[in-house]
Amino acid sequence: MREPRSEASRVRRVADRGRYDSDTIHSILDAALVSHVGLVSGGRPIVLPMLHGRDGDALYLHGSVASRLQRTLAGGVDVCVTATIVDGLVFARSTFHHSMNYRSVVVLGRAHAVEGDEKVRGLRTIAEHLTPGRWAESREPNPAELRQTSVLRLPIDEASAKIRTGGPIDDDVDIDLPVWAGVLPFATGWGEPVDAGDLPPGVDPSAAVAALRSH
Amino acid sequence: MREPRSEASRVRRVADRGRYDSDTIHSILDAALVSHVGLVSGGRPIVLPMLHGRDGDALYLHGSVASRLQRTLAGGVDVCVTATIVDGLVFARSTFHHSMNYRSVVVLGRAHAVEGDEKVRGLRTIAEHLTPGRWAESREPNPAELRQTSVLRLPIDEASAKIRTGGPIDDDVDIDLPVWAGVLPFATGWGEPVDAGDLPPGVDPSAAVAALRSH
Repeated sequence: MREPRSEASRVRRVADRGRYDSDTIHSILDAALVSHVGLVSGGRPIVLPMLHGRDGDALYLHGSVASRLQRTLAGGVDVCVTATIVDGLVFARSTFHHSMNYRSVVVLGRAHAVEGDEKVRGLRTIAEHLTPGRWAESREPNPAELRQTSVLRLPIDEASAKIRTGGPIDDDVDIDLPVWAGVLPFATGWGEPVDAGDLPPGVDPSAAVAALRSH
Repeated sequence: MREPRSEASRVRRVADRGRYDSDTIHSILDAALVSHVGLVSGGRPIVLPMLHGRDGDALYLHGSVASRLQRTLAGGVDVCVTATIVDGLVFARSTFHHSMNYRSVVVLGRAHAVEGDEKVRGLRTIAEHLTPGRWAESREPNPAELRQTSVLRLPIDEASAKIRTGGPIDDDVDIDLPVWAGVLPFATGWGEPVDAGDLPPGVDPSAAVAALRSH
């Protein structure tokens, strides 16, 4: 168990749910489809969904935050990247002890826009995070497309995770109340692929798409 | 289509995806299991997952942000509440036109802690958001539990939604590249209920839990 790097990243509310080891933090980031990126704009908080991908201890971010703050990004921008995966609803006998099983990560730090080769590497990291193998199947970005794209890099340094698992923890006095208690797992998966309207006949889903569905 | 209430809540990146009507904003908030709440703490952004529930034009929030900022909440706190639902991955022939189908809402404003009857109403709103009918099945919070619980109220006033639907939009020159393009829908649902370890024999999942699974 790694110690938190700062007070700001210390898990406050239920301390025993906090985790600081890299394996835990990385695995949650890798499993989350989207993250929510917070920043301060004009003194006010803004939170926007972004796509991300991890390369070792670096998190690459792609999305609207980058274009929104394009002008201020040269010197970097303080961000908080939070990713949450819901695993289930926890039903207790009392409303008070109802809860949610989840895994979440908070990464704090200063994000910088990247250019050139690292921008391409960041885009590939984000694409491969969502669908391993897809980068090689599709046409790589050309210079004009790269100019229209912003990629941010954030070191995964000041980070913490929170995980809740297991059933409800009811007060002893409530155990015999005549109401069901337990966990309803939240299940996710991929549906049937839908061809693009302009797909020529006879083109089947690619290996990367098929592999994603089989997981 | 309602006009945005402020420049801060205007959707920037792809303007034609922006929506400002209450029905759209409410339906996304109602469908999202969790939201991500951003605030400014010591000049830096913090984003934490929270549970929410909507009562008309009011959003109630429950979770760690409240306890973290307990002392500053008397005067209210500027927050940004963002909820995102992933609907699918969009595969294009070019990496550049890959995208995600999603629905997201951003609500900006000043959240205040609520007490007394409104705290109970807020908790009930949040509980019923997650599982309609569950409040009446479980033991209501007692005064000691209410003192340990923080609920924030945020008016849904300065808000915007973004929605992407449909297939990839490839450049004409890429249409005949020999690679599959289309959408892989992201599917979610509820698994089999897992009884609490201390559940007495013969107690079946309640009507509210069964109804949630049947949706």
